[in-house]
Amino acid sequence: MGETFPMKGGDSEYSYTKNSNYQKLASDAVKDEIKEAVIGSLDAEPRSTKVAIADLGCSVGPNTFFTVQNLIEAVQKKWPSETLLEFQVFFNDHLGNDFNTLFSSLPPERQYHAAAVPGSFHGRLFPRSSITVAHSSYALQWLSKQPQGVHNEGRIHYSGAGTDVVKAYSDQYEKDLSCFMSARAEEIVKGGVLVLVVPGTPDGISQSDHPVGVMFNYLGYSLMELANEGVVDKDKIDKFNLPIYAPVMGEMKRVIENNGCFSIEKMELTDPRSKVDGPIDVAKLIMHMRAGMEGVFSAHFGDSVVDKMFAKISDKAQEMSHFIESGYSKSTQLLVVLKRK
Amino acid sequence: MGETFPMKGGDSEYSYTKNSNYQKLASDAVKDEIKEAVIGSLDAEPRSTKVAIADLGCSVGPNTFFTVQNLIEAVQKKWPSETLLEFQVFFNDHLGNDFNTLFSSLPPERQYHAAAVPGSFHGRLFPRSSITVAHSSYALQWLSKQPQGVHNEGRIHYSGAGTDVVKAYSDQYEKDLSCFMSARAEEIVKGGVLVLVVPGTPDGISQSDHPVGVMFNYLGYSLMELANEGVVDKDKIDKFNLPIYAPVMGEMKRVIENNGCFSIEKMELTDPRSKVDGPIDVAKLIMHMRAGMEGVFSAHFGDSVVDKMFAKISDKAQEMSHFIESGYSKSTQLLVVLKRK
Repeated sequence: MGETFPMKGGDSEYSYTKNSNYQKLASDAVKDEIKEAVIGSLDAEPRSTKVAIADLGCSVGPNTFFTVQNLIEAVQKKWPSETLLEFQVFFNDHLGNDFNTLFSSLPPERQYHAAAVPGSFHGRLFPRSSITVAHSSYALQWLSKQPQGVHNEGRIHYSGAGTDVVKAYSDQYEKDLSCFMSARAEEIVKGGVLVLVVPGTPDGISQSDHPVGVMFNYLGYSLMELANEGVVDKDKIDKFNLPIYAPVMGEMKRVIENNGCFSIEKMELTDPRSKVDGPIDVAKLIMHMRAGMEGVFSAHFGDSVVDKMFAKISDKAQEMSHFIESGYSKSTQLLVVLKRK
Repeated sequence: MGETFPMKGGDSEYSYTKNSNYQKLASDAVKDEIKEAVIGSLDAEPRSTKVAIADLGCSVGPNTFFTVQNLIEAVQKKWPSETLLEFQVFFNDHLGNDFNTLFSSLPPERQYHAAAVPGSFHGRLFPRSSITVAHSSYALQWLSKQPQGVHNEGRIHYSGAGTDVVKAYSDQYEKDLSCFMSARAEEIVKGGVLVLVVPGTPDGISQSDHPVGVMFNYLGYSLMELANEGVVDKDKIDKFNLPIYAPVMGEMKRVIENNGCFSIEKMELTDPRSKVDGPIDVAKLIMHMRAGMEGVFSAHFGDSVVDKMFAKISDKAQEMSHFIESGYSKSTQLLVVLKRK
């Protein structure tokens, strides 16, 4: 069982519910493409009238509801003659996810039976051959634990770090993805579809220069400033490795091919910004990042340090804008559509 | 959509988690009988290796976990050769139930895939023919809403009330149970089993003298005392009808037969006290009642009145003991086992 740091629950100012719009825009960027890929790939003639859909790493909503609706529409378009199709949707996330908030925001007019499944998607979650379409968006970048045994001085991430650090991250990622694929191979029906949307690293740029790394670097600088002010031990920073990884396409492909149970229907880098109008609002982006990642920082550094760290990085918003803008203009979102053989 | 008043969530002093031991003992009293009945009745040859079990009105645990374990053992005993059986357990309760607490207390060593399903069991919860064994214990006594259009002066329940009040309750109960049965008839597979444990009223005693009525009468007295003290409007008490009903066997049978989709494998009154050692601890029983029913009182009377009402009834614990003891020595627990035809 790995470490688990769910998105910020509830619906307060800092909650994920109120701070996940950029994630929505990034999903919207591939919405139509996912729909078409599901229609094109799905090959599991409905044995009964029941279609089970799973969203893995769903968080507390509302993004998961848009995602699920899109998948349902795809299946309905694929099997239009099956008028009696009944959908059962499984919302999965870690045990500590705020499922009460998820349930309270379920769309009242939904045309499916909703269920929540707690647990790590690095292991089994469902009975064998019980899922028709599984989906995971912006969740697989989370490693099951911090990469171990590397000295990462003055940094909290592989971004800008030495090759040994990058390798430790990459190894952990491949191990985790391999567990994920094994579990899904058992759960997804023959001909069923698995859709993955993850931050990816384009082949052209060094893995340690990934644009989201800009943010993590600034978080690292902020922590180092706090260390210089005596607020936090530098040693504590060296020992912390933010368990988030953005693979290159080749890495994902290798793990999927080693698993051997899925055919790759689509694998491409897309631009998560294609639906964003105007420049990125960095202050808002920082709030989004906080909603998603506060937990993992708090567990290691404590709440008070985390408050100060986010205050520091907010002061740097202006300075960061340029790097963020140029980083986000690249195609850094990996869309993968797989079919269970 | 009816009114919903979930059990007290969290794990504080007044929580259902910490105040549901009598419910556990009542369940334990029929545990073996349920197991045998499931083994005897289950007639749905596993089409796949997946067995879906649902606990309807599961609350926050821990009782639901014992229940589910018992059902799993029954199915394993019924189908011992199916070594690859995989269990998926659906924990259902109202949307407002504290599912976070439920998930956090899931047995770590469980041999099933857990899922939570929010929503009223008076409507559909699952896809057609998707459940092998459904179970509901101490939940169906809750009406979907307060019986309407009756004047119930100085009382909060049909216990001791006039026949028009009793009839209004009975009508609402039959309507609710009928909706429940229709939904289950669609969801449970042919040959699947539905187990119901509910407070029942033995034929011998007047429905308005049901032993749990003793408790409700004392709650009514306590509220009337508060009315005399000017703490609460008497009118407000007259307008409140606690939406809880304990049917006689004939009523349940009629609704089940009208539904027509189930055969009655077992229907009998049992003694919920058979596993209780020594006299009932009335103070504890009051705490249990509070954990289960605080919500419905608070919604109508407000928190402050509810605190005072439970303080008053606690003062009467000694006085109540005799009535409670004699009431609870009767067979007031209805066990019903049905098979989907």
